[in-house]
Amino acid sequence: MSAADDPPQAAHRLILMPSGRQGDVPAGTPLLDAARQLGVELEAICGGRQTCGKCLVTVEQGTFLKHGITSAPDHLTPPNADERTYAAAHGLDLKVWRMACAACITGDVLLHIPETSLARKQVIHKAARDMLVDVLPAVRLVYVEVKPASLGGAGDWQRLQSALAEQWSLHAVELDVPLLRSLQAALRAGNWNVTLTLWRDQRVIRIDPSYVEGLYGIAVDVGSTTIVCHLCDLRTGQLLATESSMNPQVRYGEDLMSRVSYATSESGGLGRLHHAVLKAVNELAERAAQAASLSPAAITDAVLVGNTVMHHLLLGINPVELGQVPFALASEAPIDLAARELGLSSLHPGARAHLLPCIAGYVGADCVAALLASMPFPADEALLIIDVGTNAEIMLVAGSRILVTSSPTGPAFEGAQIRHGQRAAVGAIERFRLDRDTGAVRYRVVGDERWSDELPPGQTLAPTGICGSGIIEIVAELFSAGFIAPSGYFAPTERHPRIRPVGSAAEFIIALADETAGGQEIVLTQFDIRAVQLAKAALYAGARLLMNHIGIERVDRIHLAGAFGSYIDPRYAMTIGLIPDCDLMRVVAVGNAAGDGARLALLNLSQRQQAEALARRAEYVETAAHPQFQDTFVDAMALPHSNDTFPHLSAPRA
Amino acid sequence: MSAADDPPQAAHRLILMPSGRQGDVPAGTPLLDAARQLGVELEAICGGRQTCGKCLVTVEQGTFLKHGITSAPDHLTPPNADERTYAAAHGLDLKVWRMACAACITGDVLLHIPETSLARKQVIHKAARDMLVDVLPAVRLVYVEVKPASLGGAGDWQRLQSALAEQWSLHAVELDVPLLRSLQAALRAGNWNVTLTLWRDQRVIRIDPSYVEGLYGIAVDVGSTTIVCHLCDLRTGQLLATESSMNPQVRYGEDLMSRVSYATSESGGLGRLHHAVLKAVNELAERAAQAASLSPAAITDAVLVGNTVMHHLLLGINPVELGQVPFALASEAPIDLAARELGLSSLHPGARAHLLPCIAGYVGADCVAALLASMPFPADEALLIIDVGTNAEIMLVAGSRILVTSSPTGPAFEGAQIRHGQRAAVGAIERFRLDRDTGAVRYRVVGDERWSDELPPGQTLAPTGICGSGIIEIVAELFSAGFIAPSGYFAPTERHPRIRPVGSAAEFIIALADETAGGQEIVLTQFDIRAVQLAKAALYAGARLLMNHIGIERVDRIHLAGAFGSYIDPRYAMTIGLIPDCDLMRVVAVGNAAGDGARLALLNLSQRQQAEALARRAEYVETAAHPQFQDTFVDAMALPHSNDTFPHLSAPRA
Repeated sequence: MSAADDPPQAAHRLILMPSGRQGDVPAGTPLLDAARQLGVELEAICGGRQTCGKCLVTVEQGTFLKHGITSAPDHLTPPNADERTYAAAHGLDLKVWRMACAACITGDVLLHIPETSLARKQVIHKAARDMLVDVLPAVRLVYVEVKPASLGGAGDWQRLQSALAEQWSLHAVELDVPLLRSLQAALRAGNWNVTLTLWRDQRVIRIDPSYVEGLYGIAVDVGSTTIVCHLCDLRTGQLLATESSMNPQVRYGEDLMSRVSYATSESGGLGRLHHAVLKAVNELAERAAQAASLSPAAITDAVLVGNTVMHHLLLGINPVELGQVPFALASEAPIDLAARELGLSSLHPGARAHLLPCIAGYVGADCVAALLASMPFPADEALLIIDVGTNAEIMLVAGSRILVTSSPTGPAFEGAQIRHGQRAAVGAIERFRLDRDTGAVRYRVVGDERWSDELPPGQTLAPTGICGSGIIEIVAELFSAGFIAPSGYFAPTERHPRIRPVGSAAEFIIALADETAGGQEIVLTQFDIRAVQLAKAALYAGARLLMNHIGIERVDRIHLAGAFGSYIDPRYAMTIGLIPDCDLMRVVAVGNAAGDGARLALLNLSQRQQAEALARRAEYVETAAHPQFQDTFVDAMALPHSNDTFPHLSAPRA
Repeated sequence: MSAADDPPQAAHRLILMPSGRQGDVPAGTPLLDAARQLGVELEAICGGRQTCGKCLVTVEQGTFLKHGITSAPDHLTPPNADERTYAAAHGLDLKVWRMACAACITGDVLLHIPETSLARKQVIHKAARDMLVDVLPAVRLVYVEVKPASLGGAGDWQRLQSALAEQWSLHAVELDVPLLRSLQAALRAGNWNVTLTLWRDQRVIRIDPSYVEGLYGIAVDVGSTTIVCHLCDLRTGQLLATESSMNPQVRYGEDLMSRVSYATSESGGLGRLHHAVLKAVNELAERAAQAASLSPAAITDAVLVGNTVMHHLLLGINPVELGQVPFALASEAPIDLAARELGLSSLHPGARAHLLPCIAGYVGADCVAALLASMPFPADEALLIIDVGTNAEIMLVAGSRILVTSSPTGPAFEGAQIRHGQRAAVGAIERFRLDRDTGAVRYRVVGDERWSDELPPGQTLAPTGICGSGIIEIVAELFSAGFIAPSGYFAPTERHPRIRPVGSAAEFIIALADETAGGQEIVLTQFDIRAVQLAKAALYAGARLLMNHIGIERVDRIHLAGAFGSYIDPRYAMTIGLIPDCDLMRVVAVGNAAGDGARLALLNLSQRQQAEALARRAEYVETAAHPQFQDTFVDAMALPHSNDTFPHLSAPRA
């Protein structure tokens, strides 16, 4: 019977659960096509060839009054040979599960589509707050069947292009020469069938013989101190491994400016910094792959973020201009390139790399990533994002506007410029309490859960110094208790056995000599307090100027990003005036927001466009050179005027 | 006076010589713009900023009755400060020469535009025949003035992009990361003015501070034996230097198939072949640059051609498939890539490379280039292009059709498989004559202008062997003289003192033992004649089958390409039936046609599109497997039946 003789086809009702979408489809339509017509895309790596088994669905049996249909498994065509083969090989019960690409509709059906069979998977992204992310990465797998080579026929790549056009409607797809080298062997090993990894549907970046499934990528946050690498399954969105290491550039310069100087003035310095960071990223990718029992060559996509100096050093661009006015970036646009061209040689030879955009000379891709991780944000609220390091990056999101600035806090919060300051390593005092009634002090150190007054007699925590959060808590506690005046000087009228005059100033003994690791007292000096005041004033003034810039008095939410933001106690930060007033419940440590943003951009291509849009929308406000900065800064030097504004702390002694 | 108050502007007549284009232009229009309006584009690397002095023109003085105008130098605005500065610095007489970008029209003007000031230069391309080529390469120079960096302003590359859009109407221009590394220093060294080299107006491939002029490229013919590199000035089209060297792959295999085998079966063989050819091309580029007193880094474009095996080895693709049925190419499309990615490290880091397309497994980019060099060809004639090597590539252009094939001639014409055969090196017998009356023989060797019978007594040419053209001449002369029968056997009835019986066969003594370099006779054996017959039959049969394919009996023109085509004497080639019948005057040795085609594609971008169109139009005809091939081949084994068809040779002795 020819097609022209067919009777008009009957239509049957199809209902897709759990989405609830429904519609009438002609009898004989495969479920895969029918679902697509109703707007539900199922997984089909094999392109509907009944081999991959990704599109499994199940038919509900029964009468569904609400929908007015009776559904039954036999309202589909019986399993064909391919389905039976697959079912036998995978222990699948065909009475329950059917391949949507094979089963065709012969009656009304209510279909259940499990999450795993949906093409667009969603994962809950653990970040500032849980977010639902569509897993739609820049890379995807497609399986193609290519016509065998023939005498005088078209070349292998030309026939593969034809197959992509015919089987996937993909045209003008490109192939790099390094990939061209593996094409012929893959085609023959797969008996003319290959699985391609496509980048943005524009470029073939990997060719595997036959049918394969794995699709992996890394999101890398290149911090000046720490590099973090997340390995993700790009089909499920699952985080498979996270590895981190010290940024090996530290050996060439502790802070950013000393690295800029090293790159500029040391012969070969730029190359050493460039190769050091790439080597570290390669090693992290290898470690992450190993942790997930994968080869690093399984990784075909990478998203990288970092501050502007890290961004330039990653690309091998001399950061000299970032070290001097007017802090010109070589480029602020997002950058796409072959991972091998960047130097990420541990990944697949065809792998791609994407660097998120920067905003301005001081405000890098890490800030853009942090912004991304904070989106979407209610349009009627104001959000302040603060990332404290040697410089504080400050972002204010309010309505349609995004303001960003960088404020020169100096390294006080990292423990530098403080007499007994140190990094937040094991042994550093990170918590401090002063009893308002007894005047007794107690503290905790990194690496120990106990307070110093909870130890058995004769035992100590053996502190080695004070880290950033410890310094803030000490100043805040002493100020709240009245031992430090709003001016920052030790209050002349308050007496405490641990306050010891030094010349015209004074210092506070935090830990006694016999308690410490070094056998020396750990003290807080007047200069230390001054350093904290300078740093917090710079940070506060920067935030304040952004708020002034758009005329708002309060922010609704504060995100404290980065490691510092995780250690700091928001109550103490507000006590010393580090951050503007805000409902304490809405001051949140968001952890490695830059890494979270990088992960979003890895899992979902449209997040990269979002990042670019955010970077473009962001207005850089030069605060340090602003005419109001000096006044705001000087005002902010004082510790907050009235402790009444901090009901969350116990009232100080009178 | 505001613009609105301007009186209607007067128009003046402008006549441009030598093109003769004319029209009326408003008073005050700069000559550069006026000429453009009349369709004549002048050079202006500086973008009309009155600094480059490329647009110099001269005004004719007098009354031109034919045009009805009176022209005078003072019908232009007087020289301005920029023109006077340039004139003083370059010894230019402003009474004679004016800058078209500076001088504005104030009256009727007849302008002479020298060839050097025209933007589209033409060069006469020495190839099969002289051709006029528009010099419109894939790369060009543009000078841009970029806004200085400012605090919080856009990045350097973003401001450069804006300048390109504003000053040259170029949008979405790209920049590779390796170039991004040199951007910031170049901008500052040039005080924010840079000269960019653009590739296809799509991509910045070189950045020079301030204003520079040089633009250079190479065209490379990668032969299996010889590599030839032409260095061209891409602004004038001038050929600056040609360098050639042996293909170093020869050491891994004399002929193509042994190299395919080496790449496939030797561990690391592919890499060695790949790197050997790239090293040779790099060295040739360096030598050519040195010959032209340039740095090789001045080279920003390269076009490469070669047969399919050379093409794959250049790209690092294993040629294994080219060595076995069905001879599948990895890709036949033209390939654009960064020269550095190809491995051409001696060129500028941003330089581009272009490989012309291939046609089929046996018919490579060298054939496409040879086709290109033969275009345009009269539509009512039939052209046969033959490139003889180990395989003969045969192309037939007739009407709108292009047929190509490859015929397995074997290496006889290269001196292999011949008892005393050798390459065409110094000492090889390349010419041979047999006196019909006296039976005396004489010959010439490569590297000497004299015949063997022109030497002083006691002196010899000390031949070392016989090269391809010598073998053909010997067989043709012996055949014409009747010593070799049409069957190829020594004629049993003809006696010559130099014919010596060997078993049931015979051999001919070409050079006596005391004449040769080795002190041994040089002879032509019955087996040698057989080898020549097999080779010529394969070539002839291939050509014949192409002609049969479109039903033509004769060709109007034959191009003999390659080194062999240059040495071979067409009369002798026709005598032995190597090539089909054709008017002898129209059998032309076209030399290195592949190199000529590569040069065309280097000088003019549209020639690359032309090459792609030719490659697509070309129909590959599989001749060796054709059912008629065997019969045609066997028929062609005989030496031509009647010598009457060769009136150009003296009649043989009866």
